[in-house]
Amino acid sequence: MSQKQTIIGNALPNIPWEPKPQQCSDVLWRSEMNPIIQRDLIPCSNSIFNSAVVPFGGEFAGVFRCDDKGRSMRLHRGVSKDGIHWNINNDPISFICDDEEIGKFVYGYDPRVCWIDDRYYVTWCNGYHGPTIGVGYTYDFKEFYQLENAYLPFNRNGVLFPRRINGKYAMLSRPSDNGHTPFGDIFYSESLDMCHWGCHRHVMSTTSEGWQSTKVGAGPIPIETTEGWLLIYHGVLTSCNGYVYSAGAALLDIDRPWKVLYRTYPYIISPQKIYECVGDVPNVVFPCAALHDAPTGRIAIYYGAADTVTCMAYTTADELIAFIKDNRM
Amino acid sequence: MSQKQTIIGNALPNIPWEPKPQQCSDVLWRSEMNPIIQRDLIPCSNSIFNSAVVPFGGEFAGVFRCDDKGRSMRLHRGVSKDGIHWNINNDPISFICDDEEIGKFVYGYDPRVCWIDDRYYVTWCNGYHGPTIGVGYTYDFKEFYQLENAYLPFNRNGVLFPRRINGKYAMLSRPSDNGHTPFGDIFYSESLDMCHWGCHRHVMSTTSEGWQSTKVGAGPIPIETTEGWLLIYHGVLTSCNGYVYSAGAALLDIDRPWKVLYRTYPYIISPQKIYECVGDVPNVVFPCAALHDAPTGRIAIYYGAADTVTCMAYTTADELIAFIKDNRM
Amino acid sequence: MSQKQTIIGNALPNIPWEPKPQQCSDVLWRSEMNPIIQRDLIPCSNSIFNSAVVPFGGEFAGVFRCDDKGRSMRLHRGVSKDGIHWNINNDPISFICDDEEIGKFVYGYDPRVCWIDDRYYVTWCNGYHGPTIGVGYTYDFKEFYQLENAYLPFNRNGVLFPRRINGKYAMLSRPSDNGHTPFGDIFYSESLDMCHWGCHRHVMSTTSEGWQSTKVGAGPIPIETTEGWLLIYHGVLTSCNGYVYSAGAALLDIDRPWKVLYRTYPYIISPQKIYECVGDVPNVVFPCAALHDAPTGRIAIYYGAADTVTCMAYTTADELIAFIKDNRM
Amino acid sequence: MSQKQTIIGNALPNIPWEPKPQQCSDVLWRSEMNPIIQRDLIPCSNSIFNSAVVPFGGEFAGVFRCDDKGRSMRLHRGVSKDGIHWNINNDPISFICDDEEIGKFVYGYDPRVCWIDDRYYVTWCNGYHGPTIGVGYTYDFKEFYQLENAYLPFNRNGVLFPRRINGKYAMLSRPSDNGHTPFGDIFYSESLDMCHWGCHRHVMSTTSEGWQSTKVGAGPIPIETTEGWLLIYHGVLTSCNGYVYSAGAALLDIDRPWKVLYRTYPYIISPQKIYECVGDVPNVVFPCAALHDAPTGRIAIYYGAADTVTCMAYTTADELIAFIKDNRM
Amino acid sequence: MSQKQTIIGNALPNIPWEPKPQQCSDVLWRSEMNPIIQRDLIPCSNSIFNSAVVPFGGEFAGVFRCDDKGRSMRLHRGVSKDGIHWNINNDPISFICDDEEIGKFVYGYDPRVCWIDDRYYVTWCNGYHGPTIGVGYTYDFKEFYQLENAYLPFNRNGVLFPRRINGKYAMLSRPSDNGHTPFGDIFYSESLDMCHWGCHRHVMSTTSEGWQSTKVGAGPIPIETTEGWLLIYHGVLTSCNGYVYSAGAALLDIDRPWKVLYRTYPYIISPQKIYECVGDVPNVVFPCAALHDAPTGRIAIYYGAADTVTCMAYTTADELIAFIKDNRM
Amino acid sequence: MSQKQTIIGNALPNIPWEPKPQQCSDVLWRSEMNPIIQRDLIPCSNSIFNSAVVPFGGEFAGVFRCDDKGRSMRLHRGVSKDGIHWNINNDPISFICDDEEIGKFVYGYDPRVCWIDDRYYVTWCNGYHGPTIGVGYTYDFKEFYQLENAYLPFNRNGVLFPRRINGKYAMLSRPSDNGHTPFGDIFYSESLDMCHWGCHRHVMSTTSEGWQSTKVGAGPIPIETTEGWLLIYHGVLTSCNGYVYSAGAALLDIDRPWKVLYRTYPYIISPQKIYECVGDVPNVVFPCAALHDAPTGRIAIYYGAADTVTCMAYTTADELIAFIKDNRM
Repeated sequence: MSQKQTIIGNALPNIPWEPKPQQCSDVLWRSEMNPIIQRDLIPCSNSIFNSAVVPFGGEFAGVFRCDDKGRSMRLHRGVSKDGIHWNINNDPISFICDDEEIGKFVYGYDPRVCWIDDRYYVTWCNGYHGPTIGVGYTYDFKEFYQLENAYLPFNRNGVLFPRRINGKYAMLSRPSDNGHTPFGDIFYSESLDMCHWGCHRHVMSTTSEGWQSTKVGAGPIPIETTEGWLLIYHGVLTSCNGYVYSAGAALLDIDRPWKVLYRTYPYIISPQKIYECVGDVPNVVFPCAALHDAPTGRIAIYYGAADTVTCMAYTTADELIAFIKDNRM
Repeated sequence: MSQKQTIIGNALPNIPWEPKPQQCSDVLWRSEMNPIIQRDLIPCSNSIFNSAVVPFGGEFAGVFRCDDKGRSMRLHRGVSKDGIHWNINNDPISFICDDEEIGKFVYGYDPRVCWIDDRYYVTWCNGYHGPTIGVGYTYDFKEFYQLENAYLPFNRNGVLFPRRINGKYAMLSRPSDNGHTPFGDIFYSESLDMCHWGCHRHVMSTTSEGWQSTKVGAGPIPIETTEGWLLIYHGVLTSCNGYVYSAGAALLDIDRPWKVLYRTYPYIISPQKIYECVGDVPNVVFPCAALHDAPTGRIAIYYGAADTVTCMAYTTADELIAFIKDNRM
Repeated sequence: MSQKQTIIGNALPNIPWEPKPQQCSDVLWRSEMNPIIQRDLIPCSNSIFNSAVVPFGGEFAGVFRCDDKGRSMRLHRGVSKDGIHWNINNDPISFICDDEEIGKFVYGYDPRVCWIDDRYYVTWCNGYHGPTIGVGYTYDFKEFYQLENAYLPFNRNGVLFPRRINGKYAMLSRPSDNGHTPFGDIFYSESLDMCHWGCHRHVMSTTSEGWQSTKVGAGPIPIETTEGWLLIYHGVLTSCNGYVYSAGAALLDIDRPWKVLYRTYPYIISPQKIYECVGDVPNVVFPCAALHDAPTGRIAIYYGAADTVTCMAYTTADELIAFIKDNRM
Repeated sequence: MSQKQTIIGNALPNIPWEPKPQQCSDVLWRSEMNPIIQRDLIPCSNSIFNSAVVPFGGEFAGVFRCDDKGRSMRLHRGVSKDGIHWNINNDPISFICDDEEIGKFVYGYDPRVCWIDDRYYVTWCNGYHGPTIGVGYTYDFKEFYQLENAYLPFNRNGVLFPRRINGKYAMLSRPSDNGHTPFGDIFYSESLDMCHWGCHRHVMSTTSEGWQSTKVGAGPIPIETTEGWLLIYHGVLTSCNGYVYSAGAALLDIDRPWKVLYRTYPYIISPQKIYECVGDVPNVVFPCAALHDAPTGRIAIYYGAADTVTCMAYTTADELIAFIKDNRM
Repeated sequence: MSQKQTIIGNALPNIPWEPKPQQCSDVLWRSEMNPIIQRDLIPCSNSIFNSAVVPFGGEFAGVFRCDDKGRSMRLHRGVSKDGIHWNINNDPISFICDDEEIGKFVYGYDPRVCWIDDRYYVTWCNGYHGPTIGVGYTYDFKEFYQLENAYLPFNRNGVLFPRRINGKYAMLSRPSDNGHTPFGDIFYSESLDMCHWGCHRHVMSTTSEGWQSTKVGAGPIPIETTEGWLLIYHGVLTSCNGYVYSAGAALLDIDRPWKVLYRTYPYIISPQKIYECVGDVPNVVFPCAALHDAPTGRIAIYYGAADTVTCMAYTTADELIAFIKDNRM
Repeated sequence: MSQKQTIIGNALPNIPWEPKPQQCSDVLWRSEMNPIIQRDLIPCSNSIFNSAVVPFGGEFAGVFRCDDKGRSMRLHRGVSKDGIHWNINNDPISFICDDEEIGKFVYGYDPRVCWIDDRYYVTWCNGYHGPTIGVGYTYDFKEFYQLENAYLPFNRNGVLFPRRINGKYAMLSRPSDNGHTPFGDIFYSESLDMCHWGCHRHVMSTTSEGWQSTKVGAGPIPIETTEGWLLIYHGVLTSCNGYVYSAGAALLDIDRPWKVLYRTYPYIISPQKIYECVGDVPNVVFPCAALHDAPTGRIAIYYGAADTVTCMAYTTADELIAFIKDNRM
């Protein structure tokens, strides 16, 4: 195993894991425990979904989208010994910020968490005269510090790469508008200081028909592999009864990640289970985080279901990469 | 108990009632028998929901929205010994009306019933060159008399107060447009004769985000309490997959009911059960009536679920009023 | 002439008048002096249009829609010796109102003025949580008193009848929505006290095609004639480049004015002159007032052009009534 | 039975059949085995629905809409011994076509199959610069030949009659636009050569309210009966949360099928089961085929549910025709 | 000249003509007499535009779109000695039709007239449950006979070729929807009998940006030349203030006219004159007819301006064809 | 004069200038020579408008929006001796760019030119998978170099400040969407290297009613004055017939330019002249550049009219600043 690791990264021996069911022929398989987080895990929550999880101190920590019962979108922190059973804080995260105007919380949703260098960076969709990408960090999942917003509005799904690329921080995002945005491509941006961003490049468009024809957006933090950056992303189809959110996967060039090497024609998961089809927003699967264990190639994906609950699905790097290549557009 | 009754009104010892489940921390709890009225209770019905119930002769009577299998919206009368098991008439109500043009039935939906003085007034969304508020009355739930429409189109959710205020009849309503109306506030109007209406006042707006951000409308007949008029109302959020109807509560000033004293930031009930999330219109809870028993403060709420079936939920006046104050916007 | 007056009303010997040009075959003819009021007649005005004029003390007075240079919609008073050359007050009308909430001015536009009994009533589109019909009166065109709004929002083009009908005040209006309203019929309402309104009746719908297919609304105060109420009204057609406002005419039953006796299939005036086709809103003619002289049957119509300037057109009662009958739908 | 056959056609003694449940008072009853075809019956399928079945060689064959996991719409062939358990080919149908431009497959969905003279004609919604009606045929359900598209875009739901009428081929269709088409009536067209179509006649409009108020479209191949052509069709209602697809039935004049003799006011089936209400498109029942047995009058209807799975429902010709007459609009 | 005629056709020595102004560098030049037909040429007309003219008996005849003062769209016939000064009949054309349902006139607009074999065929946008292509003919411009509509709704701008191609009648058209249609390509269809149409082929799409980015539609009858069919067509751009209609030109393959040989990147005329920019629909030039004189190559184009008046512009075949080739996309 | 210069900047003694007409009471007055640049100044141009002019070598130079006759949006360079009569290059600017993907020209419009340090920076709305802000520079108005786009799409109206603020380059912009954008506020961003941008701040919102209620965007390069940055900006009102573009002015804090000190309630110019009301987009005035002469305070504003031609208007710094303060919101 040590000779040929596909994932470039650390071991995570305690990664949550369930073997693939025998009759399953899909590249991803769902947890038998889904939804692993119910909508009402904490007293004030209407729903808990589209949340970000990382290894932390031998256990796990995360930032969670918890819409409250006023249906306001809030971010909460949580910890877990096994990545499955979570202890989420009852109070929203209160970011420490030098600038009063930037630090004023309006709404926050769909967080991602990314370890770079010495800390955990958090990015999320942040309300500042419209949705944009909020950026912050924490060392300990207790105190969170907020930096400048990365971009002008309107933007969503800001996802950092887990290391500098060509000497710069790198982020994927999905420029949008101020509503439910019936369009959206993935772009790539660079920064020297995590404050000023530029050198924007187009990464990935929607397709003319199918599950990713309305918009596409990055999901979990990209996973570095020997085959390129492994990106799991969401795509949206517009039916006569609204949006359907599914997920696919792609491989991006290691040094020029705005170059797509391969991208799946089919989805790798779509809303089919009752907890994905029924809830506050029917027919949504929305991955926001993925744990991975380099020696075994195991990947555990956290995804929101029906904008209501949090679920998990599993795959391995080799299986998923082979699938991407075999089913490319 | 007699010294300190919160509800100003009569006793209703046979009010339908189920005690709060032990593990329940919500201010409202659903009936274990939900849905108490199935969609096909009468042969012609596609659905029975958004219906109004009152005490009547020691038992219960009501006016029911029964969409038929052509999906036309009709009003039917029904009676029940216990408020749970209903005998609904197979034929729609045929209103007796002096004016042929007004009395011509086009469509009727979302009725409310309100005892004032000596009779049961019925208000409903009435088709007359667009939706407006139809007004009628009955003494016996057998013969129904139709008066003039209260307002010009376009209007919905006309809800009478159960007594004159400052010497005038009073009604809440939600001015709208001729379609699915992506906006709507609650207004208050007065009448000396239940025919001409004026002195219109704005009561309550939508909020900038959350469950009541698209429109709000009055639900059951307001309940007079020592703390003000207790109003249960619905609010609508627009997701990318359509409207979500939840309910909240407010206290209105007794003498100037267009002054909102308190109003809940969170919803008190939202569509979460399968019969609320799945049906002709997914993700709808819509309260239209509430029984109450002054000595005990018990309140039994009737609400439509998914525009398909009729359900019940319970609370008490003291618990709900405390919740409103503790969770005000 | 005295034996057979078509118009039931007073003489107005100084009515503005220009004889019909010889080559003109239309039922209405425009003033040679159009536009009689330029957009910048007063220093603050962006535009002056859709305004109401009445005989006053042997001369003329009026309430004018003057959008200021912030493009806010305001009402100003004005006086004129000849009905053509106007002296408009630089400051907007400040209504005196008993109720602070109702009297708070948000916006006002498209006024009408109507003499009933002992005073000049003013109605206009009044901003109160959406457009509705404001009602006020003046005795002297110096002090203006504001009453309750006639209806709930959303409404526009409230036009009083110049006398009680069946003992009640009577008003036409056009229920609408909170935007540019791509629909609209004329309704009739009654009031005993100019405060509470009811007995609403549908008067006139749009047509399936043509100049009045999007919406219709009452124009000047109806003129009482031996043939019925003579109503000049506007109609709107939606082209691929926006709305086109034209005007037609109808005769309404004297005692039941919601019964349309005749209504023109063609328009009587449509935007064709450069000052009607070019301006803040291209392609608009919008009549809001008409002077009439009973002995001669002369009618002088004031109309807004392109939502920018005020114009006049002329006809006679006999000629217009004959046209309505000859060109009815 | 032999004396009085309502259906004019052949015996199909092995028609799939389940007797009407005792407690059922509806004119159609669902199969206990629903959904008879699951969404994942073949490896590549996201969903299998809106499919066409015919008797074939003593058994059954069909053309199936199988959306793949890229959510592209494809047509597959299948065979079955009993009409319930299906063997669907893993590869889409590859039509043989003389003209390269016409034969280039873009997308195909909602097929119908119709035996005329000597072969099975297939019609479907075919992508050619927009949706139009593709036409092809097969003798053996192995090789499929493609002809010219019947019409210009935009069109859907092309349904052939099973014999020439007045010497011409005849087809129903629903002209539409290039999106989700919030309108749609049924039209009738004729052809001498299955290539050029003309003599278009309007058949059936939507209604002002109810289940068929947004659009209507033909479903299975019309069944010839002594009472006229028996047509099962779909209708769509627009709720605030999207379209609801139900089905009704009509009788068309035998010689002038664009004349509707009777048409049901109520639906005969609407989405009420969980597999009809939850799936890729919630709240859809969409019949595309019907088997019938002339001697017994049995009719077995195939319909898509929630744009996800294939279901069956049953009735008899006599029962359905009586229902149509008793419940006509 | 006789050796090298670009236009394949007859001489028309009395073609209206004005030489190109010296300072003009455009390929088309407008008539100094524009608009040649005013909006009020006949008493009932609101506007006269988008009209079709042909040589007739040594003089000229035509079918004219005359919207009446109810803004209904009607077709009138007219004759002219010089093609400039027109005598248009006051009454709309009353088509003689065998079939009552087809012959019932609802609305008709944007006619074209095309001589084939022995008669003048007229095609127009005809109201039959939506806009489609009406077809008729006349021998004498006095009696007009109506045939079956060519297509199902929704269609506009049906333009016949002036001879059979490969033995069949041929028509261009622009499939559309039932409103102002923000899309539209040109298609080609064939018929053996001028009744049944098929073998539909896509001809020309809109472009991603520019004057022809919203929709394109055929204009005058294509002119046969040694270089292919010379087609003048309209294109539409959507500005923030509505549609702008310009015109371009193309050359189509003689035998397979759905193959575009060349097509102009720039417009050849766009709305720039006051009579093109101001009127019932601002910013419209819309060519519907072209006279041509083979020996000189002169072409006189009739076009509607601002949907209000009729204008002319001139070019020559050689100059236009050279322009098309030099300025192709 | 030398003691008290309001404008902080250079003398420009040859600034184009026309004295204020005597009867004019407006703060801005138009040039008598308007439009100073006609739509067809160069052979390929459909229109020339929304263009940027600067002093250059004792004369004037500029970058011009020239839409070609395909209605593609292009940038051209031009020079002028007097700022009024222009020599515009027939060919679009071809930017020199290191990066092939960024340098590929798709479309460019609404340029601004700003001298900073040692060169002329050009910003414009640049097509790169949607509109964003292109950045380039020139030393000589002959060779133009293109840098990275400043932001992700979707953005328009990027306007640089003429010097570093707090050590950073500073730019105003108006985030938008991918269409005609019915919303838009002004934001402020900073950059150390003219490549990476951050520290985004909200500057100015739309108002609830009036000329600036739909969107606002920066116009010419802000002018440094003793009272703050003098910003002329455009605002848009949505009428029922489309957008109306007017212009206003504001004073921004010198060191924190996202703080608005004063802002005009009225417009300072709105479309009222025929060349502003009639053209490719009716009712547009759109300032993009302003020359100023510090000693006299003279300001000469270049603005596009009706998206068709280029015009000029004049004011002085003192007069405009006084107006802003006297007419603030």
